[in-house]
Amino acid sequence: MITVLRLGHRPARDKRVTTHVALTARAFGADAILVSTKDLALERSVRDVVRRFGGDFRIQTGVPWRRIVREWTGSKVHLTMYGEPVEKVAPQVRSDNLLIVVGAEKVPREMFDLVDWNVAIGHQPHSEVAALAVFLDRLSGGTAVHREFSGPLRIRPSPRGKVVLESEP
Amino acid sequence: MITVLRLGHRPARDKRVTTHVALTARAFGADAILVSTKDLALERSVRDVVRRFGGDFRIQTGVPWRRIVREWTGSKVHLTMYGEPVEKVAPQVRSDNLLIVVGAEKVPREMFDLVDWNVAIGHQPHSEVAALAVFLDRLSGGTAVHREFSGPLRIRPSPRGKVVLESEP
Repeated sequence: MITVLRLGHRPARDKRVTTHVALTARAFGADAILVSTKDLALERSVRDVVRRFGGDFRIQTGVPWRRIVREWTGSKVHLTMYGEPVEKVAPQVRSDNLLIVVGAEKVPREMFDLVDWNVAIGHQPHSEVAALAVFLDRLSGGTAVHREFSGPLRIRPSPRGKVVLESEP
Repeated sequence: MITVLRLGHRPARDKRVTTHVALTARAFGADAILVSTKDLALERSVRDVVRRFGGDFRIQTGVPWRRIVREWTGSKVHLTMYGEPVEKVAPQVRSDNLLIVVGAEKVPREMFDLVDWNVAIGHQPHSEVAALAVFLDRLSGGTAVHREFSGPLRIRPSPRGKVVLESEP
């Protein structure tokens, strides 16, 4: 059970990036995303993907993030370029009840102390989408992207072009 | 030598996501990004990161993408959820003169035929930022994020908090 917590989402400015964070969470094996700011349009667009492509990925927005992090009983990881190398931390992280925190531009200083590990995917500025994808890919030993979603729409891998299989409803 | 080609960038709508694509390209070992649409603000913000964090990553916007892809003499990969699994393709790709194409929402159909490989990082909808990061991470066997940039600003890995080293100019 893996949950992603997205902090600092501003609906107008971050709509697309937070959507990418949510879909990346789902595609790389997380079970849910919590977003600190309320954003019903974001919820709708993520649920629309779940409805079409399957699985039971959940999204909730407008959550009390401090309380969630403080009261989390499993492992807590914060992805930040300031943290320790992923190679060092990943082998110690258990994914059975894992909270992964990703911020937008500024993350409150206290987050660095609220989590068990601050983890860096490289120490250069890049993207919380990239950090989340690579962290989940590494954590799963590369197997996360093979999860079967069995949704109404499925892609058949193809060397050229788009093959979409659509099940009867 | 790895170059990323970003298609379908709309400056207002995609500013943040394309910035994430560019910074991810840089942080995961690419040498340059080409963006189909002219966007001077995007160029400035990427060059600002390069100036502060080092390296010689290049950005060019407003490029003739069809001609670039057609005339590319090295390998050409298009990242798309419709493509073949990354596990199958990555071992065949040479990174010495590689062009990696990532789209925004819609990629012209002809792209699927212009490249050598259409490659999927999983067959679920997620993010071109995630796809690019994981592809470069896998292609480099996990070493891409260890590249040294030796810029004026460097991060020292830390279990708690932010440690930034600033060199004398």
